Amino acid sequence: MIAQHIVDRFVAILGPKGVITDPDDIAPWVDDWRGRYHGRAAAILSPATTQEVADTVKLAAELGVPLVPQGGNTSMVGGATPPADGSALILSLRRMNRIRALSPHDNLAICEAGVILSVLHEAAENAGRRFPLSLGAKGSATVGGLVSTNAGGTQVLRHGTMRALVEGIEAVLPDGSVFDGLDALKKDNRGYDIKQLLIGAEGTLGVVTAASLRLAPAIAARAVAWVGVQTPADALALLRLCETMLGDSVEGFEVLADETLGFVLGHIPGTRSPIETRTPWHVLIEVDHADLSEPGPSERLESALAAAFEQEIAVDAAIAANEAQAEAFWRIRESLSEAERAQGPALQYDVSVPVAKMPAFMVEAAVAAERAFPGTTASSFGHLGDGNVHFHVRAPKGTGDGPAWIAAQGQAINAFVHDAVVAAGGSISAEHGIGQMKRAELARLASPARLAALRAIKTAFDPQGLFNPGKLVP
Amino acid sequence: MIAQHIVDRFVAILGPKGVITDPDDIAPWVDDWRGRYHGRAAAILSPATTQEVADTVKLAAELGVPLVPQGGNTSMVGGATPPADGSALILSLRRMNRIRALSPHDNLAICEAGVILSVLHEAAENAGRRFPLSLGAKGSATVGGLVSTNAGGTQVLRHGTMRALVEGIEAVLPDGSVFDGLDALKKDNRGYDIKQLLIGAEGTLGVVTAASLRLAPAIAARAVAWVGVQTPADALALLRLCETMLGDSVEGFEVLADETLGFVLGHIPGTRSPIETRTPWHVLIEVDHADLSEPGPSERLESALAAAFEQEIAVDAAIAANEAQAEAFWRIRESLSEAERAQGPALQYDVSVPVAKMPAFMVEAAVAAERAFPGTTASSFGHLGDGNVHFHVRAPKGTGDGPAWIAAQGQAINAFVHDAVVAAGGSISAEHGIGQMKRAELARLASPARLAALRAIKTAFDPQGLFNPGKLVP
Repeated sequence: MIAQHIVDRFVAILGPKGVITDPDDIAPWVDDWRGRYHGRAAAILSPATTQEVADTVKLAAELGVPLVPQGGNTSMVGGATPPADGSALILSLRRMNRIRALSPHDNLAICEAGVILSVLHEAAENAGRRFPLSLGAKGSATVGGLVSTNAGGTQVLRHGTMRALVEGIEAVLPDGSVFDGLDALKKDNRGYDIKQLLIGAEGTLGVVTAASLRLAPAIAARAVAWVGVQTPADALALLRLCETMLGDSVEGFEVLADETLGFVLGHIPGTRSPIETRTPWHVLIEVDHADLSEPGPSERLESALAAAFEQEIAVDAAIAANEAQAEAFWRIRESLSEAERAQGPALQYDVSVPVAKMPAFMVEAAVAAERAFPGTTASSFGHLGDGNVHFHVRAPKGTGDGPAWIAAQGQAINAFVHDAVVAAGGSISAEHGIGQMKRAELARLASPARLAALRAIKTAFDPQGLFNPGKLVP
Repeated sequence: MIAQHIVDRFVAILGPKGVITDPDDIAPWVDDWRGRYHGRAAAILSPATTQEVADTVKLAAELGVPLVPQGGNTSMVGGATPPADGSALILSLRRMNRIRALSPHDNLAICEAGVILSVLHEAAENAGRRFPLSLGAKGSATVGGLVSTNAGGTQVLRHGTMRALVEGIEAVLPDGSVFDGLDALKKDNRGYDIKQLLIGAEGTLGVVTAASLRLAPAIAARAVAWVGVQTPADALALLRLCETMLGDSVEGFEVLADETLGFVLGHIPGTRSPIETRTPWHVLIEVDHADLSEPGPSERLESALAAAFEQEIAVDAAIAANEAQAEAFWRIRESLSEAERAQGPALQYDVSVPVAKMPAFMVEAAVAAERAFPGTTASSFGHLGDGNVHFHVRAPKGTGDGPAWIAAQGQAINAFVHDAVVAAGGSISAEHGIGQMKRAELARLASPARLAALRAIKTAFDPQGLFNPGKLVP
């Protein structure tokens, strides 16, 4: 545990308001939200300005104190949990929560790291724009965390991950210097793109203090459809058809197995299947227009679905007749995680493969996993157009003690699934990052060139190894 | 000069076909195409496969031989010219010129580094697609060079720079290891994005051997308009209006001063102004559709221009009535460099500032430069929507000896223009890179944090400093 006299040094520069030491106030921030990783910390450092962050980092470098940058603490991979031995302090960015500027004219918002995603959503909406990235944790997740984990979500197909939405970054590097790259330049070839390096670095190369973010036009009209298809290959053919006929207006394209739909209908009160026919696979499509020109999204989506029926790609389909129905369709998608949890213990994987290989992967990896681990059932759902699915392997029916099953089988199943992903040329982390959860698997599976590059960059930026120790870099 | 017995070691692994030593064959590749930088090299190493590149790099690392990666040798900043003392060998990628795969279904082409841009254009077109990046040097520029310089062009507004079009990279790192990141993954959060680091690294961190590139749908219909406006601010207002009314279909939006148009009309035979009215500024707009749905691009562009007249943003406009007229409009834009050269000696700057600041920059920087350097005339043209203009300062009328004027005034004018760019929060290299031409200015103007990061990354990847010595990193 970091000693009190060390903590006092930080109090001296940040003031009492800037250093949280009450164990009750610290408690919510030392474990991850899913309760899988448990840490300890003598204090949470909570600077209020970029200069205070720089002073904090400089002092930490001088004293050799490891820092764990933290936003909303909503990591899926234990990326923001401090070490269990209390050897680090938490560097919280939550007090830096100003939207420094928001220009609808320039479609740009400059947000400090502690701005909560839903706050940004609201501010953009009030200005007649939107920030086109959202996820379940939007009420807690912060801009700094979203940037540092290159967050994804359901709108990546059209708008990209955070990487595509970040136009500039301000960060404090491990030596305490301020990297001032906030100016939103569309073109900038002044050497290595430091901004890109900090996006997705999980706070291991320094700490993001602010970001310039791209806004999108508000949605003027939308159409949401539920489509039943026979196979994931048909789902991909439907996506390509939609892209050809509807262009960039396809905002969402989510795929799930009929079995997964069954879990939702079984566990989530008030849900019902949007279509009559039982098909093996389902697709949720959203088409958005920024203006009210004719033909509108419903008419255009209808034409695309007509073509899909003609080509025998689609079996059945329903277009939401109104906003309430559209919300009901999306509610099914948004309840998948909860329904899967209610269904019983499972191992969940956030993986990606090249889009063209995804249909085969969804079918073959599930069959192979069920064969290799008798009694388990496997399936996947997610963002087909991004080549990103959430692949689940559920414990055999009647498994009472989930944690015991995971303890016994987890490592073998992890290895099995990740090997399949690597064989398909994919990534063992599509959108959740590496954190501490996937570090060993990254070490096992990454090519020597990639591992050497990761380590060399880490050492170059953070020779003392003080930034988010134990995360990401194997 | 590298000794013959060293060159022989490379002949031993690449064969005589893989090592060019005839001075006549080497001559075209040791100077830059504009004749500003002159180098020497005992040999051009020309491996034909990724394995041969890896073997070459390993041997160079072992022998401590510096390598200058080279594609089409079309750098604007001396980025591919070897050192004048002959201390390095050229590593040409031109023999690696296979398109390994091209899938119209997946909108993806996997190209080796030596594939020439126009060859890729043609291959994509034959498959019913297009590669949406083009530039003047397309008949020589190679994929490896385009990736390594994060090339731009006139389609960046819609499709982004190379960075946005590269979905995967294969490269040989300075230790001879192969970074195999060719799989096109839309989402991949396995730590630092090495691919992004190699894009725009100008061959200083290793050598790109292949890239997976995103293709776009072919153009089914296009409309090209020439619009006369009063100010750059009106031009930006027109762009915003077009974006609102035409969405992502705005493919080109180029701005130039009436004076610049005058140079074209004066020097380039067969050109004429597309509009009757003389306005202080001009805009060239292209709107493209991938399908033939109604209303087509001409009708939609017409509505947008009608709104622009109503809002008094536009003064006069002409929509090309046919392909020949569209080509004639574009020919004016494509002749700007030639016309500027014919007009007399000038210093040319490739700079960017935030888009919102560009209208003011275009006017104020020109006025300030003319005041600071009496007799000169300054103006800019280029990609307003990207915040990227090519800013020119022309020698006083009657200056006979251009090189002498540049020798006398160049450094002071460089510093003046770059200071103005930095004051506006911009970049001294928008799309051409740093190479050797802008290295000193980068050292003078970059923040300490940026410089330290550049140097740390360079040392981490290339501790011996063997890759493209003397370029980019100050």
